[in-house]
Amino acid sequence: MAEKKNPTRVEKTSEEIIRFIISNKMLPGNQLPTEEEFLTWFEVSRGTLREAVKLLVARNILEIRQGAGTFISHKKGIPEDPLGLNFIYDDHRLALDMLEVRLMFEPHTAELAAVNATAQQRKEIAESPRNIESLIRRGEPYADADCRFHQMIAEASGNRVIGQLMYILHSSVSKNIEITLDTLRDKNTVFYHHKIARAINEGNVISAHWFMATHLNLLREFVIDKMEADGLETNKRHSPL
Amino acid sequence: MAEKKNPTRVEKTSEEIIRFIISNKMLPGNQLPTEEEFLTWFEVSRGTLREAVKLLVARNILEIRQGAGTFISHKKGIPEDPLGLNFIYDDHRLALDMLEVRLMFEPHTAELAAVNATAQQRKEIAESPRNIESLIRRGEPYADADCRFHQMIAEASGNRVIGQLMYILHSSVSKNIEITLDTLRDKNTVFYHHKIARAINEGNVISAHWFMATHLNLLREFVIDKMEADGLETNKRHSPL
Repeated sequence: MAEKKNPTRVEKTSEEIIRFIISNKMLPGNQLPTEEEFLTWFEVSRGTLREAVKLLVARNILEIRQGAGTFISHKKGIPEDPLGLNFIYDDHRLALDMLEVRLMFEPHTAELAAVNATAQQRKEIAESPRNIESLIRRGEPYADADCRFHQMIAEASGNRVIGQLMYILHSSVSKNIEITLDTLRDKNTVFYHHKIARAINEGNVISAHWFMATHLNLLREFVIDKMEADGLETNKRHSPL
Repeated sequence: MAEKKNPTRVEKTSEEIIRFIISNKMLPGNQLPTEEEFLTWFEVSRGTLREAVKLLVARNILEIRQGAGTFISHKKGIPEDPLGLNFIYDDHRLALDMLEVRLMFEPHTAELAAVNATAQQRKEIAESPRNIESLIRRGEPYADADCRFHQMIAEASGNRVIGQLMYILHSSVSKNIEITLDTLRDKNTVFYHHKIARAINEGNVISAHWFMATHLNLLREFVIDKMEADGLETNKRHSPL
């Protein structure tokens, strides 16, 4: 298809915009200067500048709000498929891989949240399980609220890398794995979310860790059982050598 | 700056290309059909098709090799700054956040590698520490070889999400955190890399877990000591409530 050119003026200009953002320590939501201002600073044509902005929009670094201007995107440059899972084509095994990873770091994350959450964060985490419970009671979808609960805990950990990682994992989950709703699963969620939220709220690190671990392990077991019932091959990689 | 239009023909065409890739289960390194072929399938102009390809190159989903054609990128759509850390401006605390995360999942990853690595992977992991040791002896930079060692272990875990996550963490580390070289640090690396590699090679899950944990914990301690010596505020968030 198209021929590769050396770094084009457009690419160079997009790098200049990134350097501008970083050197001004701009944050997501901040508004970029106008096109006119950039044109007085950078020696480029209006066409090149516009193409450069489009590239950064494609990379989720900038967003254009109609009539308002150009802003640093809240997506912070994180793409739609940040883990590159579009190219993994066996959903079921992927769901288990994902839960294995979550088991590795969410219990520790809950511990950190129990220690580091602010009063406001504790309050929000404490309220979340009731909302999810009432969605379940009304038979409404709750996957998004469920994700937000785990995301709140990640953010309350005080570790910014965890917040970003959780965002990446959950956006990959919702893109790549279809989550089956099921009464047994609903009960697990309601019971353990309450336990986790209470432990974090009370600063109880041991309970926070182990309720999160149990919650995720039961979820993993649930996925394995479903797969076996459907005759799908589960993760047998943990056999002895 | 530029006005936002509704999803343009270029954006729609880039989504069509992604659907084409996914429905054909294409993998990184695979070559895309020619421009001519796409033009017979999609009802778009050559200009629109080229712009769509450029967008996907900007998103690291495609790459153009001069004279050879267009390929699925090995970057799998993962951007240069996948964690969006460009917008975090305090390097030192970020280094600690990163090590905290690595402590959460690399010891478990080493366990899985001890169980799941193929014969070929065990061989490569076993050879790696000697290479790093000789780089250190010759006073040469070894950060890349160090990353590759951890990446090999992640891939040997058999969990594909871990492989991608490690890739993301390490590319963020090298982009965002300047790693100080130091004799004490070198000794830690040489000693523990040998221990970890041997444990994985022999399928010893307990040793694999705990040598990895010790390796990373000493590294974390090293960073804290450095920060305190430089008068920087370290991570005091783990104090009682």
